[in-house]
Amino acid sequence: MGSSKVITLITDFGTKDTYVGQMKGVIISINPHALIIDITHEIEPQDIREAAFLIREYYPFFPEGTIHVAVVDPDVGSHRRPLLVKKDGHFFVGPDNGIFTMILKDNLEIFTIENRGFTLKNISNTFHGRDIFAPVAAYISRGLDISLLGRMIEDPILLQNIYPRVEQETLYGEIVRFDRFGNAITNIDASTFKDFTGERRFRIEVGEIHFDSLCSSYFEGVMVCLVGSSGYLEFGYYKDSFRERTGVKKGEKVTVRTIF
Amino acid sequence: MGSSKVITLITDFGTKDTYVGQMKGVIISINPHALIIDITHEIEPQDIREAAFLIREYYPFFPEGTIHVAVVDPDVGSHRRPLLVKKDGHFFVGPDNGIFTMILKDNLEIFTIENRGFTLKNISNTFHGRDIFAPVAAYISRGLDISLLGRMIEDPILLQNIYPRVEQETLYGEIVRFDRFGNAITNIDASTFKDFTGERRFRIEVGEIHFDSLCSSYFEGVMVCLVGSSGYLEFGYYKDSFRERTGVKKGEKVTVRTIF
Amino acid sequence: MGSSKVITLITDFGTKDTYVGQMKGVIISINPHALIIDITHEIEPQDIREAAFLIREYYPFFPEGTIHVAVVDPDVGSHRRPLLVKKDGHFFVGPDNGIFTMILKDNLEIFTIENRGFTLKNISNTFHGRDIFAPVAAYISRGLDISLLGRMIEDPILLQNIYPRVEQETLYGEIVRFDRFGNAITNIDASTFKDFTGERRFRIEVGEIHFDSLCSSYFEGVMVCLVGSSGYLEFGYYKDSFRERTGVKKGEKVTVRTIF
Repeated sequence: MGSSKVITLITDFGTKDTYVGQMKGVIISINPHALIIDITHEIEPQDIREAAFLIREYYPFFPEGTIHVAVVDPDVGSHRRPLLVKKDGHFFVGPDNGIFTMILKDNLEIFTIENRGFTLKNISNTFHGRDIFAPVAAYISRGLDISLLGRMIEDPILLQNIYPRVEQETLYGEIVRFDRFGNAITNIDASTFKDFTGERRFRIEVGEIHFDSLCSSYFEGVMVCLVGSSGYLEFGYYKDSFRERTGVKKGEKVTVRTIF
Repeated sequence: MGSSKVITLITDFGTKDTYVGQMKGVIISINPHALIIDITHEIEPQDIREAAFLIREYYPFFPEGTIHVAVVDPDVGSHRRPLLVKKDGHFFVGPDNGIFTMILKDNLEIFTIENRGFTLKNISNTFHGRDIFAPVAAYISRGLDISLLGRMIEDPILLQNIYPRVEQETLYGEIVRFDRFGNAITNIDASTFKDFTGERRFRIEVGEIHFDSLCSSYFEGVMVCLVGSSGYLEFGYYKDSFRERTGVKKGEKVTVRTIF
Repeated sequence: MGSSKVITLITDFGTKDTYVGQMKGVIISINPHALIIDITHEIEPQDIREAAFLIREYYPFFPEGTIHVAVVDPDVGSHRRPLLVKKDGHFFVGPDNGIFTMILKDNLEIFTIENRGFTLKNISNTFHGRDIFAPVAAYISRGLDISLLGRMIEDPILLQNIYPRVEQETLYGEIVRFDRFGNAITNIDASTFKDFTGERRFRIEVGEIHFDSLCSSYFEGVMVCLVGSSGYLEFGYYKDSFRERTGVKKGEKVTVRTIF
């Protein structure tokens, strides 16, 4: 029972406006027993890609039955579809713009949200987080049969160039985002990295910097490369910001080569 | 039952200090079943005006019986009165400094908070959010008869020059605040705008920029003027910040003229 | 019952990443009835000292039985011990790096956390907040017998030079941190100050500035020195930032001398 009432929120709305507060008011009005948990509202404005990576990171730590609302929605008010995705017993509610790319594999059910019975009566052109996604999440938390929401679809929008790729003996990835400490997180996950390098020696390059080994924690060097808690290669600077110290940018290329 | 226990918080305390945490501790100590919802703690320090506009924006999305605590309080420790306002089945707790201006119309009951039985025992000169407003909200969430708080009053402080005005065939408003995306929100609400323009053509001017029509969503142009989700005219820049792109300031004049 | 389920979080994780969200997911998965309250996640990165002062500030406002999780942990992954402290009926969970210095006096029980039965199965080298501290807090909120966690210890790490000291008729303290408004908070608590000055006249100096009296609230002068809501001497600037106006830094010396 308890665990079926959790609703998480991830948006680019920030916390200085009342957007998130309005969403919470809508949810609580529909289900006073919902437990609302903020993941973050500081996705860089309109960076769907950043949200896509983060969703994959936190959702497995929540109990089955959790409803995850994700709103980074630059084209709100256009014809982009509102979606409900069910996967691994979790529910995901948000726009059909690629934000769910990283979880759209295996064992999925995807519905468009079309039934006006589970949205606010007035749907604005600018704020579907409040008018569509929040109320749908709240109704699901009350046990709504999700097949009532709309049609099942199989063609959701997917972000392109999101996974690392191998070309001519080189593994290519990129910096996807920075965390609060200025650590730079890549899109190269631990298993892709290990499959590529095997037992061979390797060199990881980003900008002018290279690493010839992985550390296992931040205090092992001044600049370190390690598999972070999210399972991706990341770069850090001991008690300082890798981002500021090195000037690397989001989108910057990261290469891995093996050495004979 | 459930819906009568919601307490929302809006302050200028920020989130890097423990001020808000202390308020929550006080509330939970008095009513462990209160559901506390943060609206924002990033009101620009001491900008009562910004808070006044925001309160009107989010409160209607909460269920009746919700208690809204609003603390932007530059004169804490002076003789300004602590207030409890009841309106539309909602309760509002905060200082008597104009912060409730936008809701102080029709069907009101306003009480001063004088009864020390519903505050912390020690009332500091610097933090009434914790010592007065949080505990009063918590007691109301437990069902307190609000007439026990103090005297009913009819002369609350009101902010001046807060509404748009018409002079010589021109509607004058101003930029009240910016949201996280850099959209500029005015104090010109949709119905005042429509009453003024009727079916006539119009020109909206802010700084060097003008608009001759309203859009219905952000993706309809590079620079757009539209009625935002809060019901006020606002200016936006597609996938960018209107504030940074144009350099407009808070308080900057916005004019609407009709054209023959 | 209700009051035994509160878990507070104070970290330097910020709110733009999913670190805090992951911790909440872990807690809710173990105890769906836990009431999680964010104190702040904006401790300056790796500033254990700032966290140490803040913990002392907010915890007394929470009910007995509250579990406080504090994670500022630059040496995560090293041999520093994870700790559980019980004091005054409150529980504190976090690293053994001095973060609990300000509460480690009188009536204490301190345990190392060694029992893998109350952590996540996989413990990363980079994120013990999620893998150790969050689950331990959640199990305590369910009523765990804390003596099962590990060994009782009596040698926790303590921060040095944290209290003000008297030398040659002068009381020496320092600026410990700034709050959101730019008020500068010292490590000189009201009772140390009063014991030192007694009924005598005094002069308080910080940088180029001095004060010969204390105010009781912020509106009593342009620059004021007062005992803030946390019980420490602090410096403020009316409707402005003392920090920006004066340029004082964290760590800057504050002296108090008495005058004949």
